[in-house]
Amino acid sequence: MNTFNVDVLKSFSVQVLTTLGVRQKDANTVADALLKANLEGVDSHGISRLGVYSNRLKDKRINPAPHVQFEKKGTSVLTVDGDNGLGHVVSSKAIERGIEMVKESGMVGIGIKNSNHFGTASYYCQKACENNLAIIAFTNSPPGIAPWGGREAFFGTNPIAFGFPNGNNPPVIIDLSTSKVARGKIILADKQGESIPDGWALDENGQQTNNPAEALKGSVMPLGGAKGYALALAVEILSGILSGGAFSPNVNSIYQETSKEPANVGHFFILMDIEKFMPYETFQFSMDQLINQMKETPKAPGYEEIRYPGERREKEFQLRSKEGILLSKNVQDELINLGNIVNVPFPQAMSSHNA
Amino acid sequence: MNTFNVDVLKSFSVQVLTTLGVRQKDANTVADALLKANLEGVDSHGISRLGVYSNRLKDKRINPAPHVQFEKKGTSVLTVDGDNGLGHVVSSKAIERGIEMVKESGMVGIGIKNSNHFGTASYYCQKACENNLAIIAFTNSPPGIAPWGGREAFFGTNPIAFGFPNGNNPPVIIDLSTSKVARGKIILADKQGESIPDGWALDENGQQTNNPAEALKGSVMPLGGAKGYALALAVEILSGILSGGAFSPNVNSIYQETSKEPANVGHFFILMDIEKFMPYETFQFSMDQLINQMKETPKAPGYEEIRYPGERREKEFQLRSKEGILLSKNVQDELINLGNIVNVPFPQAMSSHNA
Repeated sequence: MNTFNVDVLKSFSVQVLTTLGVRQKDANTVADALLKANLEGVDSHGISRLGVYSNRLKDKRINPAPHVQFEKKGTSVLTVDGDNGLGHVVSSKAIERGIEMVKESGMVGIGIKNSNHFGTASYYCQKACENNLAIIAFTNSPPGIAPWGGREAFFGTNPIAFGFPNGNNPPVIIDLSTSKVARGKIILADKQGESIPDGWALDENGQQTNNPAEALKGSVMPLGGAKGYALALAVEILSGILSGGAFSPNVNSIYQETSKEPANVGHFFILMDIEKFMPYETFQFSMDQLINQMKETPKAPGYEEIRYPGERREKEFQLRSKEGILLSKNVQDELINLGNIVNVPFPQAMSSHNA
Repeated sequence: MNTFNVDVLKSFSVQVLTTLGVRQKDANTVADALLKANLEGVDSHGISRLGVYSNRLKDKRINPAPHVQFEKKGTSVLTVDGDNGLGHVVSSKAIERGIEMVKESGMVGIGIKNSNHFGTASYYCQKACENNLAIIAFTNSPPGIAPWGGREAFFGTNPIAFGFPNGNNPPVIIDLSTSKVARGKIILADKQGESIPDGWALDENGQQTNNPAEALKGSVMPLGGAKGYALALAVEILSGILSGGAFSPNVNSIYQETSKEPANVGHFFILMDIEKFMPYETFQFSMDQLINQMKETPKAPGYEEIRYPGERREKEFQLRSKEGILLSKNVQDELINLGNIVNVPFPQAMSSHNA
């Protein structure tokens, strides 16, 4: 394990992406989203993904310089065709447009088709919160979860995310896959040569497995049984059908080497202008009251504090912003290799650790 | 157990409610919602609730004839003050207004405060689907779930519901509590003198219990651990804060005999006009394709078919519409007693069973 300076990793990412034809502004967006994930402790969605995005840009399965098309319908619907651009680029542009619209209308629904993996949903939730908005975000993804009663991966692990600004506290950021665990964690375990716990996944024959490579060929268990299946279906309909995109068995994995087809991932965002519901200060006051009141309730055995979603993420962000980002040897080797291919030297570590 | 004709039970419910000062149209709405739940097999939210609603109307904790106030903000926000009316009445009026607005704007957010228990969220989802709309519905409820790391019931069991029209199939209706099980199931078990399975709930000392009465004093486990807690929090913020209402520890239970305070339940609805996203026929076509494709995937051991959420509900509805509604002796005795109090005779059963 080596520790790296975040700005140096960001700069490396931008150089790699621009070398592959991504516009400077768009490369900055992607690098910002990736490194934000690392800073927040969500390494599964961080710079470890740069390699696969780069491969897909190289073999033209992702369009480095998309012409994203927007169409406004009614006062509060925005439909977006991502032109097969990087998901972070397409989604960030869509959120920017949505923010302009929602200040007028109060609510905006954004359906996005022809996109790609957009990283963490929380990244877009934070953007909304910075603009005093509440948000619900959904995305589909390649097949991961079997329908209830089935044994073939059909739905993506389809996250649902929420963002709510707070008063004196960092925002409430909820970002959860509708699978028992995010597929990204299984991908990372595979990359780091680790096994996965019981109950996370089934192999392609429907048998429980601890081998992440076998799990990636099989299916991930839904969150809380049949309810998780129902939530995955809802996310699929919003992101894959109402967006005008593809639904999950037709969403291609960026990890699939054999296919040359675009991934055609769909996203769905709902933006809410809090000011249209009440004075913003009233909302902030109530949010602080809720969080503080909750934190003061009696603790369960073994717990010293009650944390709200987004709190640990923010603490980790503060810590890693100071101390740097730890990369495993596997991830580092992959990035060095990537740097060699595109002729961008991978930076020196700040320090090394045995881990 | 006795079987009753649905129209006869509906008529009884309407008479009880109007006797207690509820307007005829509003009584019809409540009776329709209650009996729809029974017909769909969701007995926990059916006519078994009539007694407690009636008690609260009698002791003036629920306003029988509310003046529901609406305010439109921007083009797509509707804020609603329910004037402490029955939740079914307030929510149905709000949905009607929202449907008018959404045909213009494409998206509508409805925040409702000063309401009461609204029955099943699926009832409002069905109304939206009948109007070719997609919907997401949320409501808070009296404390049921402890925050993750805590041991005191703080959040309601806070359901999340989705409704999506289909093409040739009945709509997809997803309606799930963010607790492991709906509190209504524990209330019904208590009423029917049944025990509850392991893992459903904790008693007030934080110990696992199979006694529904002890569970109702304690807390219900969240869906899938910490993720269920996060979802319950999101529902609380939308229904209890963004609505301008009360958040959960301040939401009063209609089952609490000692309090004279209004429940102050909050709801939140998001309506989406599918036509603004794409031609309605295209949506229907894709929905049928999704459902059919899913149903054709290989089955898991022990399953003969894959069902989508809303499918069993619809089958049960067809069956019970023909065969009538089965009421347990406890529920029946309670309704006979209620009839005696308000001087409305409880109807005769169609047939009786030993169960």
